[in-house]
Amino acid sequence: MTINAAYYCGNKTFAVEQIDAPAPGRGEVQIDIAYCGICGTDLHVYLGHMDARIGNHRVIGHEMSGRVAALGDGVSGFEVGQKVVVRPLDHCGDCPACNAGHQHICHKLKFLGLDTDGAFQQKWSVPAHTLHALPDDMSLDHAALVEPMAVATHDVRRAQVQPGEDVLVIGGGPIGMLVAVAARQAGAKVMISEVNEHRLALATEMGFDVVNPKTVDAAEAVTAATDGKGADVVFEVSGTQPGVDLMTAAAATRGRICMVAIHASKPQIDLFQFFWRELEMIGARVYEPSDYDQAIEWLSGGIGAERLITNVTSLGDIQSAFEDLTQVPTSMKTLIRVNEDV
Amino acid sequence: MTINAAYYCGNKTFAVEQIDAPAPGRGEVQIDIAYCGICGTDLHVYLGHMDARIGNHRVIGHEMSGRVAALGDGVSGFEVGQKVVVRPLDHCGDCPACNAGHQHICHKLKFLGLDTDGAFQQKWSVPAHTLHALPDDMSLDHAALVEPMAVATHDVRRAQVQPGEDVLVIGGGPIGMLVAVAARQAGAKVMISEVNEHRLALATEMGFDVVNPKTVDAAEAVTAATDGKGADVVFEVSGTQPGVDLMTAAAATRGRICMVAIHASKPQIDLFQFFWRELEMIGARVYEPSDYDQAIEWLSGGIGAERLITNVTSLGDIQSAFEDLTQVPTSMKTLIRVNEDV
Repeated sequence: MTINAAYYCGNKTFAVEQIDAPAPGRGEVQIDIAYCGICGTDLHVYLGHMDARIGNHRVIGHEMSGRVAALGDGVSGFEVGQKVVVRPLDHCGDCPACNAGHQHICHKLKFLGLDTDGAFQQKWSVPAHTLHALPDDMSLDHAALVEPMAVATHDVRRAQVQPGEDVLVIGGGPIGMLVAVAARQAGAKVMISEVNEHRLALATEMGFDVVNPKTVDAAEAVTAATDGKGADVVFEVSGTQPGVDLMTAAAATRGRICMVAIHASKPQIDLFQFFWRELEMIGARVYEPSDYDQAIEWLSGGIGAERLITNVTSLGDIQSAFEDLTQVPTSMKTLIRVNEDV
Repeated sequence: MTINAAYYCGNKTFAVEQIDAPAPGRGEVQIDIAYCGICGTDLHVYLGHMDARIGNHRVIGHEMSGRVAALGDGVSGFEVGQKVVVRPLDHCGDCPACNAGHQHICHKLKFLGLDTDGAFQQKWSVPAHTLHALPDDMSLDHAALVEPMAVATHDVRRAQVQPGEDVLVIGGGPIGMLVAVAARQAGAKVMISEVNEHRLALATEMGFDVVNPKTVDAAEAVTAATDGKGADVVFEVSGTQPGVDLMTAAAATRGRICMVAIHASKPQIDLFQFFWRELEMIGARVYEPSDYDQAIEWLSGGIGAERLITNVTSLGDIQSAFEDLTQVPTSMKTLIRVNEDV
């Protein structure tokens, strides 16, 4: 059977090719992809930042939803037609991280859709252990947010956000917004720090307090909003030096800072504040199975996260979808409609 | 009654003056000081780094031991002659940190012996709530290590060191050594990274594995010693950029880094490692009452920490004691014998 698959070919270029559908191997499940969102990491691939890892003929994409198309040998527990999402992590099972029970940060972790072909193709075969079943009544466009929502859920769980706590999210892109949504679900009072006026407006529409550090002193704004205490939990999602400066300045005594952003360079950090006010910093990467379960429960319950979906584009137009995301300041989350009839 | 008191007078100078003994006020206890150690902070005072806070006529000193000399009005629970140490922290009781139960990092914390006169004087009057009773059979020279040992105990408790864990201590000065001792008491396997050959030799004599990052790659040494895993807990006690580089390089996946050092400048930090390996960093400052209880129990049980006492000097020779500590590379902990007969 022939399907369409969008290959990243290097040089900011995708090519949609017709290929034979990859059959499910033993222990695998083949999925008809409904939607697949474009992740920040996918943008890095598009911009050429990850060519050494990706090569120049790779189907990327992992923020997907779909239905089971076929079961490989030895797979049970799923039915053809069932709505599913994939937790796109494949671990080695025999490194210090795996041995300690932290398979999601395995030292030899394979990320499906980066280290293997991904979901910007109409049929995708993946190990059965990566699947999570969805409620029958969950819409598959909303379900394409499960993967990034699971990131946010993992962040909030790692930071142990408690009901009533004051939370600051630094950076209001798609992940920052979902972290804010997850923190609110956990019972926190959330403020978002962001410099893009379109994103500030969206955050306000979604019911969050906002601060623009380009116009006011954000640390002072947080202090004032918390009766001099500071934020109990800060999520650094900006990946910038000003974000790193703000995270220590805005945290309460004994505050927790969750490091969500990928800092490619080594910023300067006010370590004195860690000593003086006994701050904590907690790194958080991807997700564990329970984060997927929680993300599915929250998203299927209707938490307004679907407002982040600003564009839905067909697989044939994937090239322009990526171009727009790097150029249009109002874009937030773009979904690719991979199979129009799934 | 007249006593001798050593005043820091600015310009790397102490003057021993005869003064009337400060009487204990209501709620205070007057103590005959036996020994008082010289802390790294006292050295900073001596070197003039803290003149803005200290002024130029201040009795410093807080790593003390002594006996109760007199009780002020309203004080009960202590007897004249009883061996005691002081936890030299006085909190405000009404700031966000105090309200959250973290009095030891009160926003308006007064440190006795810096913000008030301290223990380099023969009689010292302090609030009764700062006293901890010592076992009758505990020697008062060893007891002068209770305060720095409580720092180390707090650090190890904050980092939640578990039996069998691999611990790296970066920096083998007095606090680093005591952190190593405390971590070993908690059941950990401890390695110390240090560049001073005298300190490396002392650490080896005290039974610790050591590494000198000037001669080998310390991160590789830790990785090799832990079967590729890395250190479960790293204590950064060096206050240096190489120490900050080593702490992220040597930590295991999900490793905890305890920030003990006071970093006056803002070092660069490999935040990517916090994300990628889900590291945690935990700030730790001074101590809580339970840390004093634990430090007294450990020190009175005989854990070899007294080997850190390299010099005992009379109060009249305090000037040369400070000079030596800044010049003699074999010095570790100097105690001032404040009252020869206590």
